Amino acid sequence: MSRESRRSRVRRKVGALRQRPWGLPYRRLTPIAILSADQVEAVHDAALRILETIGVVVEDAAALDALARTGAVVDRVERRVRFDRGLVRALLAKAPGRFTVTGSAPGRDLVLGDETMAFASVAGPVHVIDGDGARRDGTHADMIEALRVIQGLNTVHLIGGAPVAPLDRPVATRHLDMVEAYLAVTDKVFHVWPRERYRVRDALDLLGAALGLDRADVEAAPRVLGTIVCDSPLRYDGPTIAGLLELAEAGQAIVAAPLALAGGTAPASLAGALAQHDAEALAAIALAQAVRPGTPVVYGGMAGAVDMRTAAPAFGTPDAVRATLALGQLARRHGLPFRAGAVSSGNVVDAQAAYETEMALWGAVLGGAHYFGHAAGWLNGGQSLSLAKMIVDAEMLQMIAEVQWPLDTARDELGIEAMHEVGPGGHFFGAAHTLARYENAFYAPLLSDWRNYETWREAGAEDTAARAGRLWRELAEAEPTALDPAAAEAVAALATERRHAIAASA
Amino acid sequence: MSRESRRSRVRRKVGALRQRPWGLPYRRLTPIAILSADQVEAVHDAALRILETIGVVVEDAAALDALARTGAVVDRVERRVRFDRGLVRALLAKAPGRFTVTGSAPGRDLVLGDETMAFASVAGPVHVIDGDGARRDGTHADMIEALRVIQGLNTVHLIGGAPVAPLDRPVATRHLDMVEAYLAVTDKVFHVWPRERYRVRDALDLLGAALGLDRADVEAAPRVLGTIVCDSPLRYDGPTIAGLLELAEAGQAIVAAPLALAGGTAPASLAGALAQHDAEALAAIALAQAVRPGTPVVYGGMAGAVDMRTAAPAFGTPDAVRATLALGQLARRHGLPFRAGAVSSGNVVDAQAAYETEMALWGAVLGGAHYFGHAAGWLNGGQSLSLAKMIVDAEMLQMIAEVQWPLDTARDELGIEAMHEVGPGGHFFGAAHTLARYENAFYAPLLSDWRNYETWREAGAEDTAARAGRLWRELAEAEPTALDPAAAEAVAALATERRHAIAASA
Repeated sequence: MSRESRRSRVRRKVGALRQRPWGLPYRRLTPIAILSADQVEAVHDAALRILETIGVVVEDAAALDALARTGAVVDRVERRVRFDRGLVRALLAKAPGRFTVTGSAPGRDLVLGDETMAFASVAGPVHVIDGDGARRDGTHADMIEALRVIQGLNTVHLIGGAPVAPLDRPVATRHLDMVEAYLAVTDKVFHVWPRERYRVRDALDLLGAALGLDRADVEAAPRVLGTIVCDSPLRYDGPTIAGLLELAEAGQAIVAAPLALAGGTAPASLAGALAQHDAEALAAIALAQAVRPGTPVVYGGMAGAVDMRTAAPAFGTPDAVRATLALGQLARRHGLPFRAGAVSSGNVVDAQAAYETEMALWGAVLGGAHYFGHAAGWLNGGQSLSLAKMIVDAEMLQMIAEVQWPLDTARDELGIEAMHEVGPGGHFFGAAHTLARYENAFYAPLLSDWRNYETWREAGAEDTAARAGRLWRELAEAEPTALDPAAAEAVAALATERRHAIAASA
Repeated sequence: MSRESRRSRVRRKVGALRQRPWGLPYRRLTPIAILSADQVEAVHDAALRILETIGVVVEDAAALDALARTGAVVDRVERRVRFDRGLVRALLAKAPGRFTVTGSAPGRDLVLGDETMAFASVAGPVHVIDGDGARRDGTHADMIEALRVIQGLNTVHLIGGAPVAPLDRPVATRHLDMVEAYLAVTDKVFHVWPRERYRVRDALDLLGAALGLDRADVEAAPRVLGTIVCDSPLRYDGPTIAGLLELAEAGQAIVAAPLALAGGTAPASLAGALAQHDAEALAAIALAQAVRPGTPVVYGGMAGAVDMRTAAPAFGTPDAVRATLALGQLARRHGLPFRAGAVSSGNVVDAQAAYETEMALWGAVLGGAHYFGHAAGWLNGGQSLSLAKMIVDAEMLQMIAEVQWPLDTARDELGIEAMHEVGPGGHFFGAAHTLARYENAFYAPLLSDWRNYETWREAGAEDTAARAGRLWRELAEAEPTALDPAAAEAVAALATERRHAIAASA
C-alpha cells in the first residue's frame, strides 16, 4: 500500500492546488482516555446486559436463522435476538484487528486498523448548497462534479458513498448510476449502498467488469465497504440486514455505524448512548461473523446528543467529542479498527461549520480513529453536499495530518550555528540555514490565505468560502480518470442490462 | 479561588447570552508528547549551549549588574550576558511551579500551574475590524466597548492587556487610560504594559487607589501580570527589561513570552525555534529570579514559522501546534506554569479564522497550557481586534472547557431501564429518563445555531459572524461594573496627577 514517505513533505501542484502528496497519513498522537479502564468495562457490561435482556430486533429471516445456529436466543414472532455474553465474545474474537481494502489502481489500497488514517468523503446528502447558500436537490451532474473534486484531492482517500444522491435518476437503479460514476471518474476505493442484496451484488459485478475480474476474484479480498446503520434504538431493518448479509458472504468490509443520539435515538445521557452504540454495533458485528467468520469490520458510528431545544441532532459538539474519545476506547478494547465522524451542524461555510468540524476532527484523532467518516463535503448536518466545504475540509484534514509529522531534533535542525551566524537582534531571512530549508520545512496551505491585511484587501478581500468556491471549480474541470475503453464498455453494458432487468421485475 | 463546580453545568443567562458559569475550567485531558524524553533534553541542551556560547543581549545596566552578581559572564560593551548551565539551573529552581494572582473582587483570583486553565483576552492590536471587514485605528471608545464585552463573557478570565490600543490618547500616558478603563469597566485580573518602570509603577498605584491599598499591600502578593517579549533573536531591549525589573521587584507575575518564528526571528527549523525560545525564556526567568528569588513566572510565548512565501508570521498552523506540544513538554520539564497562544492568521471572521484558532486551542490543551494567551478577540494576525471574533472565540473556549467534563458512567446514567421502557425502534424524546435530564445534560451553545436548514433560512439565514455581531453589541450595552464612588475618585485623581507629572517631565 502507498503510505506517505516519512521524510517527504514535498507538495506537488495538482491543477490549481498545491497539496500534500497522496498516501494515508500516519496517526502518531497517542489516543486520549476519557474513561477509566473500569468505566470502559462498565459501559461494555451495560451493552452486554442490553444484548442479553432487551436484545435487538433483526427484521430478516435468514439472519435470524444464522444467529439461532450460533446459539443466540431468537424470538421469531418479535424477530428479536438475545445474545449471551459468551457468544458475543466468541463472535467478536473472529473479527480481524486490521485489514486491507484492495484498491482498483496501484497505490490505492487502504489499510484500516494500524497506525494510519483514512479520510472518507461525505455520503448520503440529498441536497447541494452552492456558494450563495441556497439549497437544491442533488442531481447526477452534481454527483459527477463532486467525484471529480474528490478524485483531485489527495487528502480524500476513499468515497464514503454517493457524495450527493442523484435524485434525477430512478431509485431502483440509482445504485448503478452511482457505481458507474465512481468507476468512470475516480480510481479510489468506494462504499456500496448496502440496502437489499441486489445493490451490493450489482456494485461488485460492475467493479468486476471494470477490472476484468470474475465474481470469485472480486470476492477473494475486500474491495468495497458498506456502512450498516442501525435504526436506533436496537432495531435493524430488513433491507439493511440483507445488505449486510450480501457483503459478509462476498467477503467485503462492513462499517458498523449506529447513530446513538442521546435524548433522541438513545437515552439522554452520554453513558447511555455509548452503551447502546456498543450493543448495536456488536450485534451487527456478531451477525457478520456468524455469517462468515473473519469478515472485516470497522467499529464506530456516532454517539452524541440531540439539541434539547430543537430536537435536531447536534454534531461537532463537546459532547460528541467526549463520546468519540470513549468509543475509541471501546474499539481498542474490542481490538477493532475504529471509525469516527468528522461532522458539524452549520448550515453555511462559515466559522461555525469550521470550528465544529475541527472539534470533530480532533475528537477523531484523539479517539484513535483509523477511518474518518464524512470528512469532506459535509454541511447542514449531512443533509447537503457543499463543494466549498469540501475544500475547507481538505485543508483541515491536511493540517490534521501534518500536525502528526515527527519533529526532528538532529544537531543541524537545532540551528545553533545559524544563531551564531545571525547573532542577537538579527534575522534569519537570508541565512544559509534558511535557504537550505525554506521550500519544504513547513506546512504549506491549500486554501488558507496568510497574506497581511493590506495585501489581502487589495487583492479583493475574498473570504475563505469564496476562495474555496474558486478552487473546487478548478478541480471539477479535470478530465475523468478514463477507464480503458473496453472496461468502460463492459461496465456500461452490464449497467444497461441490469437497468432493464430491474425495470422488468418492478 | 473560584473554580467550576464539578457537578454544575447550569447555564445562566447574562444579558443575551446563556453561557457557562464563571470559574476556571479544569484541564483533564492528558498532555500529549511530540518529543521523546531524549529529544526534550536535546532541545534544552541546545538552549543551554546558546546561553553559554552566544548569550543574550540585555540593554539595561541594572540588569547586567544583577546578573553579574549571580556569576553570569557579562560583556558590558556588547551588553551581552552568558550563563553557564549550573547558574541557569540554580535560578530556574527558585521559580514557583504554581501561584495565585489575587483578584480585585471575590472569586476573581487566578491560579496558574495546577489543573485549571485561564483564558486571556487579546492584547496589543492597534486596529479594529468591524462587521463589514474594514479596518480602522483603535480608539479609547473601542477599548471601553471591548472591555464591556470581556467583562460580560464568563469564559474570559483575565485581561491580557489593552484589547485595542487607544491611539487617540498620547502614548506617554496611554497606560493610565488603559488601567483606568480596566478598573472602571471590569473586575478581572489584568496585565500591565511593562515597558519602562513608570508604566508598571503607575498601574500598581492605580490598582492600590481602586482597592484602598497602600504600596506594600499591593506588593504583598501577585495582583497583575506583565508579558516580557524578547526582541528575538536573543535580545531584550532596555524598556522591556526595565518593566521586568519593576515587576519582579514589586512581586508581580511575569510571562516570559519569546516570539521565535522559524525562518524569521529564529532558524528555519522547528527544533531551532524551540531551542531559541527556551534560551530566551530562560534568560528572562533567570533575570527575574536574580532580582527577586521566587518571582512568579509563566513559561511560553510562541514558536512557529513565518510563511516562506510572504514572510508573514503564520499562526494556527500545524507547525505551530507541533511547537506548542514541544514547548509544553519543556515547561513541564522546567516545572513552570505554561502559556500557549490561541492565535490565527485569518483576516476576517470566517472558516479560516475559526479552524486556525481551533487548531491553536487544541495545541494549547494538548500542550498542557495553564494560560491561553490572546484567546478572545484576535484577528488579522493580532494586528486587529474583532469583537465578533471575540464571541466566536468565547464559544470555542466554552467548547474546549466542556470537552473536558468528566463522563459519568454511574448505573442510572447507563440508561438500561430507559431502553427497556422505550424498546427497540422507539424514541427517547418523552422518556422519564430524558425529562429528568434534558436541561443540563448536554452542552448548550452560546453562539452556534443548531436549527435545521429550513428554520435557519426562514429566520434570515444569518451566518456566524453576523450572529456574533449581534451578541457582542448586546454585551457592550452593559453598564460598567461600578467602582465605588470614592475609589473611582481616588483613581481619577491619581491618574490626573500622573498625567500632569508625565507631561511636565516630557
